[in-house]
Amino acid sequence: MTRTLISGGLVVTAAEEVLADVLVEDDKIAALAAPGSSCAQGWTADRTLDATGKYVLPGGVDAHTHFEMPFGGTVASDTFETGTRAAAWGGTTTIVDFAVQTRGRSLREGLDAWHAKAGGRCAVDYAFHMILSDVHEGTLKEMDQLVADGVSSFKLFMAYPGVLYSDDGQILRAMQRASGNGGLIMMHAENGIAIDVLVEQALAAGRTDPRHHGEVRKALLEAEATHRAIQLARVAGSPLYVVHVSAEEAVAELTQARDKGLPVFGETCPQYLFLSTDNLAEPGFEGAKYVCSTPLRPREHQAALWRGLRTDDLQVVSTDHCPFCFSGQKELGRGDFSKIPNGLPGVENRMDLLHQAVLDGHISRRRWVEIACTAPARMFGLAPRKGTITPGADADVVVYDPHAEQTISARTHHMNVDYSAYEGKRITGQVETVLCRGETVIDRRTFTGRAGHGRFVPRSTCQYLS
Amino acid sequence: MTRTLISGGLVVTAAEEVLADVLVEDDKIAALAAPGSSCAQGWTADRTLDATGKYVLPGGVDAHTHFEMPFGGTVASDTFETGTRAAAWGGTTTIVDFAVQTRGRSLREGLDAWHAKAGGRCAVDYAFHMILSDVHEGTLKEMDQLVADGVSSFKLFMAYPGVLYSDDGQILRAMQRASGNGGLIMMHAENGIAIDVLVEQALAAGRTDPRHHGEVRKALLEAEATHRAIQLARVAGSPLYVVHVSAEEAVAELTQARDKGLPVFGETCPQYLFLSTDNLAEPGFEGAKYVCSTPLRPREHQAALWRGLRTDDLQVVSTDHCPFCFSGQKELGRGDFSKIPNGLPGVENRMDLLHQAVLDGHISRRRWVEIACTAPARMFGLAPRKGTITPGADADVVVYDPHAEQTISARTHHMNVDYSAYEGKRITGQVETVLCRGETVIDRRTFTGRAGHGRFVPRSTCQYLS
Amino acid sequence: MTRTLISGGLVVTAAEEVLADVLVEDDKIAALAAPGSSCAQGWTADRTLDATGKYVLPGGVDAHTHFEMPFGGTVASDTFETGTRAAAWGGTTTIVDFAVQTRGRSLREGLDAWHAKAGGRCAVDYAFHMILSDVHEGTLKEMDQLVADGVSSFKLFMAYPGVLYSDDGQILRAMQRASGNGGLIMMHAENGIAIDVLVEQALAAGRTDPRHHGEVRKALLEAEATHRAIQLARVAGSPLYVVHVSAEEAVAELTQARDKGLPVFGETCPQYLFLSTDNLAEPGFEGAKYVCSTPLRPREHQAALWRGLRTDDLQVVSTDHCPFCFSGQKELGRGDFSKIPNGLPGVENRMDLLHQAVLDGHISRRRWVEIACTAPARMFGLAPRKGTITPGADADVVVYDPHAEQTISARTHHMNVDYSAYEGKRITGQVETVLCRGETVIDRRTFTGRAGHGRFVPRSTCQYLS
Amino acid sequence: MTRTLISGGLVVTAAEEVLADVLVEDDKIAALAAPGSSCAQGWTADRTLDATGKYVLPGGVDAHTHFEMPFGGTVASDTFETGTRAAAWGGTTTIVDFAVQTRGRSLREGLDAWHAKAGGRCAVDYAFHMILSDVHEGTLKEMDQLVADGVSSFKLFMAYPGVLYSDDGQILRAMQRASGNGGLIMMHAENGIAIDVLVEQALAAGRTDPRHHGEVRKALLEAEATHRAIQLARVAGSPLYVVHVSAEEAVAELTQARDKGLPVFGETCPQYLFLSTDNLAEPGFEGAKYVCSTPLRPREHQAALWRGLRTDDLQVVSTDHCPFCFSGQKELGRGDFSKIPNGLPGVENRMDLLHQAVLDGHISRRRWVEIACTAPARMFGLAPRKGTITPGADADVVVYDPHAEQTISARTHHMNVDYSAYEGKRITGQVETVLCRGETVIDRRTFTGRAGHGRFVPRSTCQYLS
Repeated sequence: MTRTLISGGLVVTAAEEVLADVLVEDDKIAALAAPGSSCAQGWTADRTLDATGKYVLPGGVDAHTHFEMPFGGTVASDTFETGTRAAAWGGTTTIVDFAVQTRGRSLREGLDAWHAKAGGRCAVDYAFHMILSDVHEGTLKEMDQLVADGVSSFKLFMAYPGVLYSDDGQILRAMQRASGNGGLIMMHAENGIAIDVLVEQALAAGRTDPRHHGEVRKALLEAEATHRAIQLARVAGSPLYVVHVSAEEAVAELTQARDKGLPVFGETCPQYLFLSTDNLAEPGFEGAKYVCSTPLRPREHQAALWRGLRTDDLQVVSTDHCPFCFSGQKELGRGDFSKIPNGLPGVENRMDLLHQAVLDGHISRRRWVEIACTAPARMFGLAPRKGTITPGADADVVVYDPHAEQTISARTHHMNVDYSAYEGKRITGQVETVLCRGETVIDRRTFTGRAGHGRFVPRSTCQYLS
Repeated sequence: MTRTLISGGLVVTAAEEVLADVLVEDDKIAALAAPGSSCAQGWTADRTLDATGKYVLPGGVDAHTHFEMPFGGTVASDTFETGTRAAAWGGTTTIVDFAVQTRGRSLREGLDAWHAKAGGRCAVDYAFHMILSDVHEGTLKEMDQLVADGVSSFKLFMAYPGVLYSDDGQILRAMQRASGNGGLIMMHAENGIAIDVLVEQALAAGRTDPRHHGEVRKALLEAEATHRAIQLARVAGSPLYVVHVSAEEAVAELTQARDKGLPVFGETCPQYLFLSTDNLAEPGFEGAKYVCSTPLRPREHQAALWRGLRTDDLQVVSTDHCPFCFSGQKELGRGDFSKIPNGLPGVENRMDLLHQAVLDGHISRRRWVEIACTAPARMFGLAPRKGTITPGADADVVVYDPHAEQTISARTHHMNVDYSAYEGKRITGQVETVLCRGETVIDRRTFTGRAGHGRFVPRSTCQYLS
Repeated sequence: MTRTLISGGLVVTAAEEVLADVLVEDDKIAALAAPGSSCAQGWTADRTLDATGKYVLPGGVDAHTHFEMPFGGTVASDTFETGTRAAAWGGTTTIVDFAVQTRGRSLREGLDAWHAKAGGRCAVDYAFHMILSDVHEGTLKEMDQLVADGVSSFKLFMAYPGVLYSDDGQILRAMQRASGNGGLIMMHAENGIAIDVLVEQALAAGRTDPRHHGEVRKALLEAEATHRAIQLARVAGSPLYVVHVSAEEAVAELTQARDKGLPVFGETCPQYLFLSTDNLAEPGFEGAKYVCSTPLRPREHQAALWRGLRTDDLQVVSTDHCPFCFSGQKELGRGDFSKIPNGLPGVENRMDLLHQAVLDGHISRRRWVEIACTAPARMFGLAPRKGTITPGADADVVVYDPHAEQTISARTHHMNVDYSAYEGKRITGQVETVLCRGETVIDRRTFTGRAGHGRFVPRSTCQYLS
Repeated sequence: MTRTLISGGLVVTAAEEVLADVLVEDDKIAALAAPGSSCAQGWTADRTLDATGKYVLPGGVDAHTHFEMPFGGTVASDTFETGTRAAAWGGTTTIVDFAVQTRGRSLREGLDAWHAKAGGRCAVDYAFHMILSDVHEGTLKEMDQLVADGVSSFKLFMAYPGVLYSDDGQILRAMQRASGNGGLIMMHAENGIAIDVLVEQALAAGRTDPRHHGEVRKALLEAEATHRAIQLARVAGSPLYVVHVSAEEAVAELTQARDKGLPVFGETCPQYLFLSTDNLAEPGFEGAKYVCSTPLRPREHQAALWRGLRTDDLQVVSTDHCPFCFSGQKELGRGDFSKIPNGLPGVENRMDLLHQAVLDGHISRRRWVEIACTAPARMFGLAPRKGTITPGADADVVVYDPHAEQTISARTHHMNVDYSAYEGKRITGQVETVLCRGETVIDRRTFTGRAGHGRFVPRSTCQYLS
């Protein structure tokens, strides 16, 4: 048995901020004790991390990544190896990626393919959601088995007709099935059928620049789809989790639903909180770097997102990390914004950006930990092993220096992508040391982990429903 | 140093449910450890409570009691001694009572009077809110000093004209002052000026029975006052805590305010969750037992209150414990409902009734602890000493048997009042053992505490505002 | 020139109730004068109708009929001849029927077919809306021409996939076109894709009775589609008219939209105001008589519809008259509710049922005239020729006896259908005499009209938009 | 008998726009006829007004004037003679002024005083509302008699404590009484108790300029009072008319109430539609010209007011004409904004400003007539005699030239006040000729009326309630 003692830090969880010594035995949190208590004074350890003046946080849980994701004829540039290593650098010790069903093939085949990509390559722990591309009797039945196998959430798309799109009947059927087997339906909520009309009209009119990506994917059409998904979930009697909420009007739909007590949840992402259509409109083809869907919104939407995070109308901040290099990948869409691969890098930046939000007064320190660690763990059936610091939990721990200063840059980041969406942004706060199941993967700003340390984590069902 | 070990229980906090051994050193929680961990196995203690199969909860915090409260020519029948003893029996280890300013006298005099009543008599810890009966330049200045002295919340009444009533200008001034000194304004939100018209009309028309108390104090007039208090707080830039919310329409006002991100909070009480105008209408003069203000509402309002507790539009369940014996006290209002002393007993029943609500599916186990222990502690500046189980916190701990069965009755309760509002109600779950700052005050259903163990706890300011 | 004088009646319009003599010259209203004025005393006429003690109303405008409509393998049982004759009996002097585009054929062909059915056969005036079954570049262009030809409204279906259904992209395109050419999009707002899943599941589970028609076509799915249509109209910048609104939740969507000042309109029908799911659940196969879509709702929805009519969140009451005989037609759906032809008779009953609503206190007398005559005329570009009594308007006039009593029955009605949806209902008020463009078509309860008197009325565009 | 023929104009009413000849016999509208009809061609008249190319409108009804109103130690500068003459110039043929009860005296005395001021001096017709300064059993009883005498509306103040203020109990009692006798309660909805605190604080802090008048009388405190008045009306079961609504948030309260179908009505005034806090902030002491209560709001509130007028959440535009000369009257408040007499001139400008709003696209032509003529007449029991052009109505008619251009200025206006709130504003449209009960009071821009032509008009009760 190996004992690690993290002493003198301020342990910040979703619920408390307490000065406590944390004792790790092998891969688990064994105990927390009041510093100076007789009990704590008696502790011995193989190794002691002095966290005085630092925060001791649960490892981050990023519930929305796309490593090696095929999209629009190319593939997201981070592998599970590079992506999870970057996650570790950013204080994230669990990622949940999306396995994709190929149309006409089984869910299982898709899941197996993703297991093959990830197995033995991850620096931190990982789990999978399943994307349903093709809802029919067969795939509905497979859902039950996947839930049993620890893949308990299923993503559907109201966007991307002809590719990932499900119609309202398919959505309803999947929701009905989920309401029976405990699965959680995750929704990309944009009215893709209407958007495709606007895309075609924009291109026909010669509006081909990246900023038009943001103009055709209208906030009203995100809000509409959000409303529709909520109503379908009510008919099915199922819970609903809306991914990458970006529009104020969509937040309002979630707020209304939650006021009624409906089991409806929402996620937003750092790009919607810190970036805007101003970025999409950057001159030259620079805007392509910021093309993702749902799109960035005008700056004034940010206030609604922050408010939603404070009022718990939004519960989770994930990254939707889906990086494409500017050179050779984003450039596929020169002259036609609809051909720009959709996605941004960010898995490494999430914890820091949200700490900056604490300093900026948007959220409290506890809420930072909740939206970045605890809520995603609980939402996707990973608690109490992940997302908190409590006796018996996995020893996924971040020692965070709240006073360190850094500047985000592609020159220094560890993601496999040739630009940063936050290039030059100055942040106060930095990950110092990271434990993943008791092993040190980042040691005072040195990567000490390895591909293969990360394990697949089977998940139970959503823990917000009981 | 005395060490107490509570072993093998399910520690339930607002944030987690975890099997953990809890080590108490003297009056503080020293550590929590995973049972079976090497660390836990090494623990020795002077005394061990076996909590296997039981819940280990933070001691309850009842943020709204009125012991020895003068009202309508009589005095609430529980003294600080009898009341806090009953609280201990019910698993509540901290109460916050209301010191009352007498019109024309200083706040300090009122506070001193309440200190005199409580000092040396309490079985569990206590703190004070201050009732402002007379807002003027002098009392506004006193507020600053009271906050510094640990009395950081101030109650105002929009009801009871001529007695406790403050007009909107006084309310605005008090809110402005609170917004500067960190104080929290607590509001009895009923339009008393309008209600008094309806009372007079009812009595003139011979509608004198207890049930008319509920009819004249209309839900719309609670909602109106709630709305008004919120708007005044917005003008003042201050937070607001609305006490004893009972009407669905009032919950809706809070929901709307909170959707906007305003620092507005709401409390309800077990009587509004479990009783209704059906009780007020009980034959004979029985209804008088249920006369309190805000009044009990028709049964269909309960769903909105439960939903508000689930959606966090209501944060706290307190008792508004203010007992008057049926015989000799409630009877003052025979023939004139307006002369019935307003108030119900309940300090002993709160934790149990809310556990029943867990079993009935209204709230989760963690939410039970949150609304009964953690949220009131945090709301009124008692965290992290009170309201949770974490290293360094006061060792206020309840061992709760979730399977025990009991029947509530005046024959068996410990409150000094001749009836129970829940007479005959069967509950699953019971307090077994209670520690207050490390001392056992209830030991397996025997009172082992003493008057004077309880201490005055100076409070910091509301902890929901940062 | 022929002069008809209608003397002594109470002229009721949407705006006024005034005792006035009405002078008709040929087919037009020539003048209104105060009875007893020197001017009125000087009037001479070829014919005088004494309307003392009666109401003098504009002829009704029924903006939603389906005569000879093919549906589900059968055809609605009223021809233009029988249907318009029944309309005349009921005090309706203008109907707007729906020409249907056959998929794969032009709008013009559909319109020509309907002209062929109606030409020379109608007892009262008629106009057409156009149903778009197949939105594409060609039909979009045809819309412009139809508007120019007096067919200025276009109906789309969010229900009936595979038959009349348009997807959201088609809807958006049609709305965009309408926003340019002044056309008004009329929407059957039900999420047919989701409903078809529920239909299939109901039938598979053996729930085949008529009442299941009401259960699968859920109120939430009407509200969802209503919301979606509104959002699409906002994106397109077009007005929207929602037909046959039946669910309280759908009214709420309209109310919200109209509060924002959006040009969104709603129609309901007498069946939703007077009938309910109680009728659908009548024993035997009787419920089939009440199968229509949107379906009848539980009785408690009626209050919201009446309120919507009073608050002008609903503007029009049409009949959606689409009769199928019980014998041989409705019976097609024995054992499978999805095969019951959708539709009810009602063109003859509308004015009377709504007069009863005046007596029942739901609406005022002026509002009766507004929702039944004036608003539909103005909505569909028929004002000021139709829908009001004003100098220069068509002399479509009803002398209405507000004191006559009648009992609705298939034995006495004039519609070509073997049952009445209101069999046995007693009504106070009855049409006495009806003029259509100056000609008497009903003369003191005798039909004096003829097939062919009614003419096609080309319509201008919606008159609520300026 | 005298016959006047107004020929060839476009008769615009709330309901229709129709080319019609209007025949006046003595003081009444005798008939309307289609121009060119045989009937019209037969008409002879003593006098013919050629209205070709002009509008023929009902005379305006200004439901909110204060002539010779004592306020803050001075008196409004227009007498009934000068004020009603100016009204005539502006196309207004009926004004409703406010008689004021003196505290401690009867309503009757106040009414008699106002009758004495107005009798024999008015150029156009007039009626009275009654201001209740002192609600008690005696005045409540008097209300019944006043309703019977044609004074059927009663104004209460939630502002001006110590002067005109009524508390919520008095308001409730007055509403209860009105719900029984058909009276309409009009409310000045501002929380005056809270505002007075802010006034005192502003003055104490040296914020004495006119613009601070707008800052202390906060929009939230108008909205709060509006909400409260609505709730009190619900408790009383009475209708409510809120005067001079200026804040977007107050409109929202009315919208919500009306969505529920409550009999709640709202008035705004031209100053809120065309002026803003920019005017209050004009340099020097110029802002004093724009001091009125409720105060002018920031410019962005105007959109909500226009929308409210379009959606019928506001029904009436009155002037709240209450002029004080800048010199000697407004100047009373130099150095103390609270001493500036509250009020603006405007009775002459209303019809023109609202016609400009038609041209600016805010409202339709029919809505212009409705909010300025028809709705106030119907609201206050003057229909059908006033507010419309229909046989039997009073011959109050305006011939309006929609193409004339004018510039508003104190140099040319006819109100007895030394400034114009709209100085220099250019307007298209002008009153040409005005008939009041058949007599020409303005004849092609010459005043031909006389003091004493105007008569007191006893009113029936609100006509929006049946």
